[in-house]
Amino acid sequence: MSRKIEIFDSTLRDGAQGSGISFSLDDKIKITLELDSLGVDYIEAGNPGSNQKDREYFEKINTMKLENSKLVAFGSTRRKNSNAAEDQNVNNLLIANTPAISIFGKSWDYHVTDVLGTTLEENLNMIADTISYMVSKEKEVIFDAEHFFDGYKNNPEYALSTLRAAVDAGARALVLCDTNGGAFPDEIYEITKKVIEEFGVDVGIHCHNDGGMAVANSIMSVEAGANQVQGTFLGIGERCGNANLSTIVPNLQIKRGYDCIPEENLQNLTTAARYIAEISNLTLDHSMPYVGNNAFAHKGGMHVDGIIKAKGSFEHIDPELVGNDRKFIMSEVSGKNTIISRIKKVDPSLTKDSPETKEILDLLKRLEHEGYQFEGAEASFDLVIRKHLGRYTPFFILDHYKIIEEEKQGEDDCTASALIKVIVKGREEMTAAEGNGPVNAIDKAIRKALEVFYENLKDFHLVDFKVRVLDGANTAAKVRVLIDSTDGQEFWSTIGVSTNIIEASVGALVDSIEYKLIKDLEQK
Amino acid sequence: MSRKIEIFDSTLRDGAQGSGISFSLDDKIKITLELDSLGVDYIEAGNPGSNQKDREYFEKINTMKLENSKLVAFGSTRRKNSNAAEDQNVNNLLIANTPAISIFGKSWDYHVTDVLGTTLEENLNMIADTISYMVSKEKEVIFDAEHFFDGYKNNPEYALSTLRAAVDAGARALVLCDTNGGAFPDEIYEITKKVIEEFGVDVGIHCHNDGGMAVANSIMSVEAGANQVQGTFLGIGERCGNANLSTIVPNLQIKRGYDCIPEENLQNLTTAARYIAEISNLTLDHSMPYVGNNAFAHKGGMHVDGIIKAKGSFEHIDPELVGNDRKFIMSEVSGKNTIISRIKKVDPSLTKDSPETKEILDLLKRLEHEGYQFEGAEASFDLVIRKHLGRYTPFFILDHYKIIEEEKQGEDDCTASALIKVIVKGREEMTAAEGNGPVNAIDKAIRKALEVFYENLKDFHLVDFKVRVLDGANTAAKVRVLIDSTDGQEFWSTIGVSTNIIEASVGALVDSIEYKLIKDLEQK
Repeated sequence: MSRKIEIFDSTLRDGAQGSGISFSLDDKIKITLELDSLGVDYIEAGNPGSNQKDREYFEKINTMKLENSKLVAFGSTRRKNSNAAEDQNVNNLLIANTPAISIFGKSWDYHVTDVLGTTLEENLNMIADTISYMVSKEKEVIFDAEHFFDGYKNNPEYALSTLRAAVDAGARALVLCDTNGGAFPDEIYEITKKVIEEFGVDVGIHCHNDGGMAVANSIMSVEAGANQVQGTFLGIGERCGNANLSTIVPNLQIKRGYDCIPEENLQNLTTAARYIAEISNLTLDHSMPYVGNNAFAHKGGMHVDGIIKAKGSFEHIDPELVGNDRKFIMSEVSGKNTIISRIKKVDPSLTKDSPETKEILDLLKRLEHEGYQFEGAEASFDLVIRKHLGRYTPFFILDHYKIIEEEKQGEDDCTASALIKVIVKGREEMTAAEGNGPVNAIDKAIRKALEVFYENLKDFHLVDFKVRVLDGANTAAKVRVLIDSTDGQEFWSTIGVSTNIIEASVGALVDSIEYKLIKDLEQK
Repeated sequence: MSRKIEIFDSTLRDGAQGSGISFSLDDKIKITLELDSLGVDYIEAGNPGSNQKDREYFEKINTMKLENSKLVAFGSTRRKNSNAAEDQNVNNLLIANTPAISIFGKSWDYHVTDVLGTTLEENLNMIADTISYMVSKEKEVIFDAEHFFDGYKNNPEYALSTLRAAVDAGARALVLCDTNGGAFPDEIYEITKKVIEEFGVDVGIHCHNDGGMAVANSIMSVEAGANQVQGTFLGIGERCGNANLSTIVPNLQIKRGYDCIPEENLQNLTTAARYIAEISNLTLDHSMPYVGNNAFAHKGGMHVDGIIKAKGSFEHIDPELVGNDRKFIMSEVSGKNTIISRIKKVDPSLTKDSPETKEILDLLKRLEHEGYQFEGAEASFDLVIRKHLGRYTPFFILDHYKIIEEEKQGEDDCTASALIKVIVKGREEMTAAEGNGPVNAIDKAIRKALEVFYENLKDFHLVDFKVRVLDGANTAAKVRVLIDSTDGQEFWSTIGVSTNIIEASVGALVDSIEYKLIKDLEQK
């Protein structure tokens, strides 16, 4: 039997402190359900006393049944020189009606005197009193020892005495927090070990990433005996973020044989990460370990060659274990193999020596030189190959369009309208649409015109729209537009490049529509 | 005396394998000079045999004098069953005319047999022969033992024998590579220690980040005795990237007292990171340890409160040590203190109890609700405060504008033109401009009109232009445009939000111009 490590997710609480993060009530519900279905042990979701949104969240989530996870409300020890039972903030935590409560308290003497402004003794009372009160309300209490490592390094006796106060008051687990995120793996290992030797209770670890070592620090704490890891699912959090659970879980479970989440759910890790990023309105870092789009992407020609000869030769795990894919990235340094594997998807009869392959390689170089980058736009590259090989019958011709946009000071809206003519199998369709801005106007006009011919365009929509200025210099620089689209079943990405943002957007939009049409045709 | 740790930067070589990275010759020169002035010991810059660009790079860089860094060319051991002196790839390395050469060779028996397809013995010959040849040409040779940790775990005797072959042939340093990036800090520590005990030579560490632990792994190797750390300056590299030197250097030097770069250069770390990101056409991850925009940004109200009471209470180091700044991020969870410190910059007489402060807080909430996010657009927030406090005299009124854009199939360019009227101190200026796309056209028209009145607008330009779709759904969704601008002395960021991309762009552009004008006025 492998040792169980509890996974304690704080995406909705500590993650919400991350810059640029702002969860709506609906976002919080969706993320909770996703984490529950992935099988994390605890979901720390906020403080019902601190704001109305968190209060509504707990009301709503308590009407739903979670399969795997325990909900946790988070709050601090009572105010100094008072009584937990009469402390409004402490009592507010009970409103959440969660089985477990995280109580954070000070473990660093400097913080007690200089930030709280109270005595070392009163801080111990605050911890004991608050936890006892929660235990009397039949709550499972998890004690977060804030700044524990800094505190321990400064005054080990006092830091340990705060843990003692928590244990004596009935805390179920002691969580050692590296709140400032500057600790090193060797320190974390040693100090965790001492705490476990001193107390017989469950110990958790809560790391921040200010030294870029939150994942390693969490793992070294587990190696020293900790059996709970706190973090956020994508590593989001204040400053440099929290320990990234989507990295820690596979590191512990696949590499070191610990039991973190149900084994059959590991393969859902990548999907869960992408879903949570989507809900959080974040672009998931492509290079994120295990779940990133490029976590198993090979660019160097030699590596690509190695992977083809011997799988695993340039990969630390099989990407399927976490539901991710191996990718061969096209570029000037990637060598032929990557591109050939994509060409073969379109026409399996072609080899690396076929003249068509050479032509596509040359075309790719030319397009890259113009600013195209197919690494993030594989649907567009697929179309480039098909068109070059003559394996593409155009679904429509965009004959012409015109956009007019007008804005007057003092008037609320800026109006944009587009007129368009498309030709489908010799039949012309001319139409016009108004939109919130020129891209929207032309998008609406194109769809309106094409839906006359292709009904299946109704169920596809854009997921993301990104613009990158290539030369970085000014508004006349070349821009690259990347569009992510979905029809609910599949996601695909397309690219457009131009000095004109409208032209680039239309290019990516047309590619996306063409890809959708060809995909549906081939699946029939 | 603190122990010297050599910093070996491979941004231009291993970093170039990163997805989305494509350095021009000029980029490579600029990055080399920046790394040299920061004081890294080695700059690994490419393979002159592999492509023309690298060959030109070495020709050009050799005409310049580096102050601190040694240049390194990188290549592999000779082909199997041949002779190094007659191997074209090996000889090509000499063209670079660098004082040092990195030679990588196989240390994992599985790779020798299954990827190289040769015998274990011939691999040892390849290492010895190639290194001896380079030493005979008076090169300092650094041996990169590819997959060393995986190799050691699989067959320690063989892995060590590859190092022995390198040492006996005259390699100056042995670099242990975790090529697949899946190793753990405790393994790295143990194995590095064994290598150092076995050989008396300099040992380096080269980690990849597939387990999210490249920084910690590099540091644990140094703790075990390694005295060279290889990485890329921003952690860029294939898959999940390489060990991030901008994190490792301050971790080692500030926290553990090692000597990595000249002490007085540490304060240039943040500027160097941002400069290299700019040249690499990368958005520097805001949460990157030490150098990220948010590395010392405080959002949670409690943390902000703590920092104000006791500096260092929520920071692992003083941000000035690495040339970064403390920031208080505005948001619904940041509490009043952050916003007050920004308001006080505009009007030092205001306090947290001033009615104006309350009004600005309410305004901020309303704007955030509309989709504004001032975290990345402090110049816009500054304008919001000034305008609300009446501390702003408008420099111009944008009376109205109209944009026309037309595209015909088969014609090369899509033309956009904008006409505009601005009013400055009662004087009207009406003008028009053509542009590559609507944003460029309106940008040019606004500047053309305003430069009549304000000459100082000539020296400012846009650095970056980002678009984020807020609701993610379709082209009618709200978009947030962020514009980064500079006048060569200062950088600032502004924001515009609208369902219309043109309107949002114009909003951000107008803010940027206003900020520039007010800044120049106040500096006079």
